[in-house]
Amino acid sequence: MEMGVVVLLITEYKGKTREYVATVSNESFHTDLGIIDMDDLLDKEPGDTVTSHLNHTFFIRKPRTPDIFKHAKRTGAPMMPRDIGIIIAYTGLNKNDTVLDTGTGTGVLAMYMGSIAKQVVTYESNDAFFKVARYNIKSLGYDNIELRHGNLLGEILHMDEKFDVITLDTVDAGRIVPDVVNILHPGGFLVAYSPFFEQTKEIREAINNAGFMEVSTIECIERNIAFTDRGTRPASSRVGHTGFITIART
Amino acid sequence: MEMGVVVLLITEYKGKTREYVATVSNESFHTDLGIIDMDDLLDKEPGDTVTSHLNHTFFIRKPRTPDIFKHAKRTGAPMMPRDIGIIIAYTGLNKNDTVLDTGTGTGVLAMYMGSIAKQVVTYESNDAFFKVARYNIKSLGYDNIELRHGNLLGEILHMDEKFDVITLDTVDAGRIVPDVVNILHPGGFLVAYSPFFEQTKEIREAINNAGFMEVSTIECIERNIAFTDRGTRPASSRVGHTGFITIART
Amino acid sequence: MEMGVVVLLITEYKGKTREYVATVSNESFHTDLGIIDMDDLLDKEPGDTVTSHLNHTFFIRKPRTPDIFKHAKRTGAPMMPRDIGIIIAYTGLNKNDTVLDTGTGTGVLAMYMGSIAKQVVTYESNDAFFKVARYNIKSLGYDNIELRHGNLLGEILHMDEKFDVITLDTVDAGRIVPDVVNILHPGGFLVAYSPFFEQTKEIREAINNAGFMEVSTIECIERNIAFTDRGTRPASSRVGHTGFITIART
Amino acid sequence: MEMGVVVLLITEYKGKTREYVATVSNESFHTDLGIIDMDDLLDKEPGDTVTSHLNHTFFIRKPRTPDIFKHAKRTGAPMMPRDIGIIIAYTGLNKNDTVLDTGTGTGVLAMYMGSIAKQVVTYESNDAFFKVARYNIKSLGYDNIELRHGNLLGEILHMDEKFDVITLDTVDAGRIVPDVVNILHPGGFLVAYSPFFEQTKEIREAINNAGFMEVSTIECIERNIAFTDRGTRPASSRVGHTGFITIART
Repeated sequence: MEMGVVVLLITEYKGKTREYVATVSNESFHTDLGIIDMDDLLDKEPGDTVTSHLNHTFFIRKPRTPDIFKHAKRTGAPMMPRDIGIIIAYTGLNKNDTVLDTGTGTGVLAMYMGSIAKQVVTYESNDAFFKVARYNIKSLGYDNIELRHGNLLGEILHMDEKFDVITLDTVDAGRIVPDVVNILHPGGFLVAYSPFFEQTKEIREAINNAGFMEVSTIECIERNIAFTDRGTRPASSRVGHTGFITIART
Repeated sequence: MEMGVVVLLITEYKGKTREYVATVSNESFHTDLGIIDMDDLLDKEPGDTVTSHLNHTFFIRKPRTPDIFKHAKRTGAPMMPRDIGIIIAYTGLNKNDTVLDTGTGTGVLAMYMGSIAKQVVTYESNDAFFKVARYNIKSLGYDNIELRHGNLLGEILHMDEKFDVITLDTVDAGRIVPDVVNILHPGGFLVAYSPFFEQTKEIREAINNAGFMEVSTIECIERNIAFTDRGTRPASSRVGHTGFITIART
Repeated sequence: MEMGVVVLLITEYKGKTREYVATVSNESFHTDLGIIDMDDLLDKEPGDTVTSHLNHTFFIRKPRTPDIFKHAKRTGAPMMPRDIGIIIAYTGLNKNDTVLDTGTGTGVLAMYMGSIAKQVVTYESNDAFFKVARYNIKSLGYDNIELRHGNLLGEILHMDEKFDVITLDTVDAGRIVPDVVNILHPGGFLVAYSPFFEQTKEIREAINNAGFMEVSTIECIERNIAFTDRGTRPASSRVGHTGFITIART
Repeated sequence: MEMGVVVLLITEYKGKTREYVATVSNESFHTDLGIIDMDDLLDKEPGDTVTSHLNHTFFIRKPRTPDIFKHAKRTGAPMMPRDIGIIIAYTGLNKNDTVLDTGTGTGVLAMYMGSIAKQVVTYESNDAFFKVARYNIKSLGYDNIELRHGNLLGEILHMDEKFDVITLDTVDAGRIVPDVVNILHPGGFLVAYSPFFEQTKEIREAINNAGFMEVSTIECIERNIAFTDRGTRPASSRVGHTGFITIART
């Protein structure tokens, strides 16, 4: 592996799995199970192991996007995979895309989109959220995400960039929509995520007034199927509401 | 736009929208509303218009992945966007990935993944399906998809490639699973899509025997919310079952 | 069977099932498959057969409440069994109950409740709906249902009856709620059925202002499971939204 | 109120609601908030209050069927109201019906049906469950429920009663089905409740072999809608699977 690559170091301790996020470098990485020389990983591959100075063995795993959920610092409930999946699939997000996103929050959606798209610009106005998002994006190794500290609601008026997909997860969504149409490429998609009906309705009205096409609002409900010795059935565990996803196209 | 770029040409005729898929080239494109010189598009951009020899005006749109659903030739019910979204989000499919897929079918999942991943290899054993998938993949411009004519169930034994994500949408899934573990990168994901409980159970048993981690089976139910003058409510339209998605990690 | 008993007469004709609702009497009953002397049924029981003058045989079935859906004349979409079930179960509707209901509509909910409760009073203000409901209730044999022609919104102010359960399926529900509390027995239940969120919200606000206890709003989603030779799965058929059921107790 | 009537006595203590089930009689009823002379209730009505010897005031409420859930002793997870509602609505359970039920369990379904039907016969083979069910049925005042101690699977062969509705909530359901057809009135309904797919499939096969009509299997999913100051949305709380309800008609 090369310098700068982010890895997961996984081990078992007292019957429980522990995972650490670390970066291949010339420095040492301190865990409560010993210190690891991170340049030891230069001649290793994911699937290999590395040993700490306390002789504890760690399995090296290449992190993938879903690992974000375990390793990002949280500043609120992050968007759930099923909703992220709806956004990606319905917009057809792809590696040629340039994306605009707000509010960043924990950064989970921005990082997911960053793993797919060419470039993601994401706005967060809250100071504390901004700092955590900055930490998450840097430590998890997303270098095509440009995190901007500010409120898109005001800034959008002065932007001369254009985007393929714009994602809004903010109470300001209804007020941002009218200006979004000017910075979306023809054929591009607007997405707004909103937990409440009232807010979703406001967004729909703004979208209708702004003259979008192919407008729909989706709620994605996920059921887990449990396979046990007693039999197979939908899990009795929680299948709660997260939010409504409104999608519109230019 | 450059030579070889695939575009959508959209127009209205007698109150209905018509869409055509065409490629920028030196040739002419015949529609029932007139002939278009496709090299006229060389100095145009998406959002511009082009005119046929019958003086009919077409809006030029850059196609995005969801346009596949309208324009791919079908050989069966294609996988639905919500299920494709679950697969992408739960595997964290990204632009560095190499993917193995079978059976290709219409090619919708392969094309979706091809728009995101570095490379997709997809197997289709049925002659008629193979030909349609080949046509779809070529005409819709996916050049990082390698469509192979054959049955993965036999071929997997001789493969020396490795993949980040492997997707199975075939009745053979349960019998392919035992060999899949040898061609998945550490930390990679296996996905199996199956409409019936019996088949899903067979896949789960194969996965358990093969020693995967983080196994789950998900059903994704989608509800559309209808906004009308009379009020807002979940749509009374169809919200049917498509399939179960089983995900496991090495 | 005794005079006045309502029966179903069921037969097959050209591979299709035909059902007729008839009453044991001294009269003859005309079908397109011949005339039946209804007093022939006096010495028969459900499960027996009866023969028309054209020698066509009819199976005699005792009708049960779900047969209403096939045999009531419709003036709009009747309430669905799953929603009727929620109302019965959450209010604990029982044979000692006196129920007030509006608007009658087709009369399906009123007849369902009439088959369980001691007495049902139901109001319908629309002339055409009233006539059809009167026909349905009479021909299907519900003699403990008192169908009143009028608008409960005005009449409720002058009522001196009291009820155990009151069911509202009308756009006036929010305006009726404030007066409902005066005609409900202590411990009794109010139910309001409403298709739209906006209307449901209005009802909830009226209920909160009126000082009810144990308020909840439920949506019941029903899935059919399909068992076929190919396997078992949730049916791909329609599972649409019907309405929201708000329940409150005095 | 008359001797023998069951009532709820409700009071507040330290900010919490307390409910007691008591019977109008010549005896005294001991609560931790004082002793109540139950014959004080002879000249009172639901909605009135009664006072203990410690001068604590209790509100008298007429119990309704849903109060069972709070006051029955449990021997396992009782059937949920939504599933009870499906059973009542799809069978059209009514006050003329005679019902056969097994296994009794806590007795919730039997008591629900007892509040509607003319007569309910219910079988419980487990000693401990039988005793609790007997206590529940007696103390909650259901005198038209005949609780039998035994296993319907064997006893059904010797029964010469006939029923309008038969409800099976037991692992033996598949083996009971073949004999059920002999003790159902023509036009009557069989219901089987089963948590797992495998069991449900076994029941469906037995039903098909026994020649029932109008067979369907239903899963009822319930969503609560939350109305808060922040807005309206489906509750994020649990919406789990309970069981599959299979319904068939003779």
